Amino acid sequence: MRRWAARIDEIEPFRVVEMLARARELEAQGRNILHLSAGEPDFSTPAPICEAATAALAAGHTYYTPAAGLSALRQAIASWYHSHYGVEIAPSRIFLTPGASGAILLVAGLLINPGDGILLPDPGYPCNRQIMRLVEGEGQLVPVLAADRYQLTPAAVNAHWRENTVGAMVASPANPTGEMLDLNELCRLWRELQRRDGHLIVDEIYHGLEYEKQAPTILSVTQDAFVVNSFSKYFGMTGWRLGWLVAPDWAVAGLEKLAQNLFISLSTPAQYGALACFEPATLDLLNERRDQFRQRRDYLLPQLRRLGFSIPHTPAGGYYLYAGIEKFGISSEQFCIQLLERHGIALTPGTDFGSHLADRHVRFAYTTSMPALEQTVARLQKLYL
Amino acid sequence: MRRWAARIDEIEPFRVVEMLARARELEAQGRNILHLSAGEPDFSTPAPICEAATAALAAGHTYYTPAAGLSALRQAIASWYHSHYGVEIAPSRIFLTPGASGAILLVAGLLINPGDGILLPDPGYPCNRQIMRLVEGEGQLVPVLAADRYQLTPAAVNAHWRENTVGAMVASPANPTGEMLDLNELCRLWRELQRRDGHLIVDEIYHGLEYEKQAPTILSVTQDAFVVNSFSKYFGMTGWRLGWLVAPDWAVAGLEKLAQNLFISLSTPAQYGALACFEPATLDLLNERRDQFRQRRDYLLPQLRRLGFSIPHTPAGGYYLYAGIEKFGISSEQFCIQLLERHGIALTPGTDFGSHLADRHVRFAYTTSMPALEQTVARLQKLYL
Repeated sequence: MRRWAARIDEIEPFRVVEMLARARELEAQGRNILHLSAGEPDFSTPAPICEAATAALAAGHTYYTPAAGLSALRQAIASWYHSHYGVEIAPSRIFLTPGASGAILLVAGLLINPGDGILLPDPGYPCNRQIMRLVEGEGQLVPVLAADRYQLTPAAVNAHWRENTVGAMVASPANPTGEMLDLNELCRLWRELQRRDGHLIVDEIYHGLEYEKQAPTILSVTQDAFVVNSFSKYFGMTGWRLGWLVAPDWAVAGLEKLAQNLFISLSTPAQYGALACFEPATLDLLNERRDQFRQRRDYLLPQLRRLGFSIPHTPAGGYYLYAGIEKFGISSEQFCIQLLERHGIALTPGTDFGSHLADRHVRFAYTTSMPALEQTVARLQKLYL
Repeated sequence: MRRWAARIDEIEPFRVVEMLARARELEAQGRNILHLSAGEPDFSTPAPICEAATAALAAGHTYYTPAAGLSALRQAIASWYHSHYGVEIAPSRIFLTPGASGAILLVAGLLINPGDGILLPDPGYPCNRQIMRLVEGEGQLVPVLAADRYQLTPAAVNAHWRENTVGAMVASPANPTGEMLDLNELCRLWRELQRRDGHLIVDEIYHGLEYEKQAPTILSVTQDAFVVNSFSKYFGMTGWRLGWLVAPDWAVAGLEKLAQNLFISLSTPAQYGALACFEPATLDLLNERRDQFRQRRDYLLPQLRRLGFSIPHTPAGGYYLYAGIEKFGISSEQFCIQLLERHGIALTPGTDFGSHLADRHVRFAYTTSMPALEQTVARLQKLYL
């Protein structure tokens, strides 16, 4: 037989993973590589989290947990929504998942019938539409503008809604732009979706990494939206693969069946580790790290502008700068390949995040130290000034 | 909107998870519960594995790994296939996954177009067909007979193959029966699939837990089948959520794209822990545990027969006994509910594993201590003799 399903031809590789692999290959050859491509903090997981996981292992906690996660962790996340955002979420609406990836899979499996479409901003996180394709749905890319801080607006939803559209998914802060939706924008978006009887999914995985003011959650607006979140980014647990989904009450029974069948259970060491995320000592450390990310953004952004990269707004969160490279007269993939192969700088081409002007943009991830950022600027300066 | 996709109505809950939850609830109320329902070893993860994971955390290994897994672990699994089975598998064909569940998702996403069917033995592991349903495929249940040790035969494949069938999935040792396929049976099954240009997927997650002779792998027969395996059962790592898929060469590029998009990465602590699985000290411990499982089987099987449960063959692997309850004149769900609620014995009803005679069978999991098994027999004896 030796043939795969039709969807496989349409699913695209997640290029940043390949860029990362190539960067590590060059590094293994002895090259000095500046890593600005990975979407993960350069900080390793905070010690209190590792210690909690280690203690759980020592106590023999190595068994399956309930399919939706440890009851204590669901409760801790609910308490976090209360203390951090002032919203009340019943723990029964919180599903732990294998990374935010697992939460996206759950929500795609729950909501999307074959042929259904979900509007997605372009540029945006590329795996969303591939996961939708897995369940025979369609991510419908909506070109978003710098003028709208690359976010989906009610007008854009209105303009791009099709016969088969059943909802929209947005991210705040967003990947690859770092741009946020404020409470008013979330309200207006929700009203537009509600008017159309559509689902709204909000990716909040960069919450906590915000530099001007706290990112609002859609759960302050409605209990009928879906929230994808994760311990990976702000909490620094990328390698542990633990995320969560907050769902409306009506969806809980369906999600329980899906989680039981798809996951059986989530990583037990990760869940015991995550219980330490909300302790004051951990949060203090995480907020120090957030301040370092802000400092990096405040250094890198003006330097890149000075070098001719076009970054119209100051992104309020995340750890990315989405930069126009029109000035350099070269496609984003060529630009990234040249920078990596010749100059040891790993970026991600805009083409990883969609197709709208993708070839004229690159993503800088400031998930590396200040000295490395300074070296990056120095190397770029020799090339482009 | 408040409605979910059509598939959700068709996907069934994984009842053993609910039975387990109810058993724990009763336990929390102070009841003494004998647990023979969970499909996980009662032994916690071997110390060398926990220690390796702990050491990795202490060394700051908390970051993403490549999407297919740590190169050292893929290599270690390849070496295991060489030393344990005498087969050569290129590490590039091995994909680490979030539990065997993730491997089933990968292979379903890779192979199944909407409307395609995969033959599955009934009784069998229930999540397989739910995961196939997720990608709009269909698990096609084939009633299998005690006379065939509840395994799919070439004749059954021949009899049940339909227009839309694209392959078959079997398990050896199987859940819920513990029955194995020998090398000759695997050969004949593969020839039948090959003749039909069909895919063959073999669930080998209970390998290592075999009591008469070593379970052969389908990879001794062909490099064109898919193997689902896991660190959960023999290696005792259920709560870590780490499995793997071995795929034919032609499938590797498609699986890489799927793994990147669906998982990004696998649990890093679990992968470092798993590196210790193949060390002699760990294997010695695991083989001692296997001997204990054999001892439990050898105790429980004749006792259950004596009490009137019908178990026609001695299962050669796994840790399950699939027992007919015709004698007791009650449906399997009623039987399990009564045993749990009134007598504190948690089993799993046959209805969790399909529909063929499901109502007349229950599954005993001997994943509990000898004293607990003796108590189980004593309680059953008061009831049924």
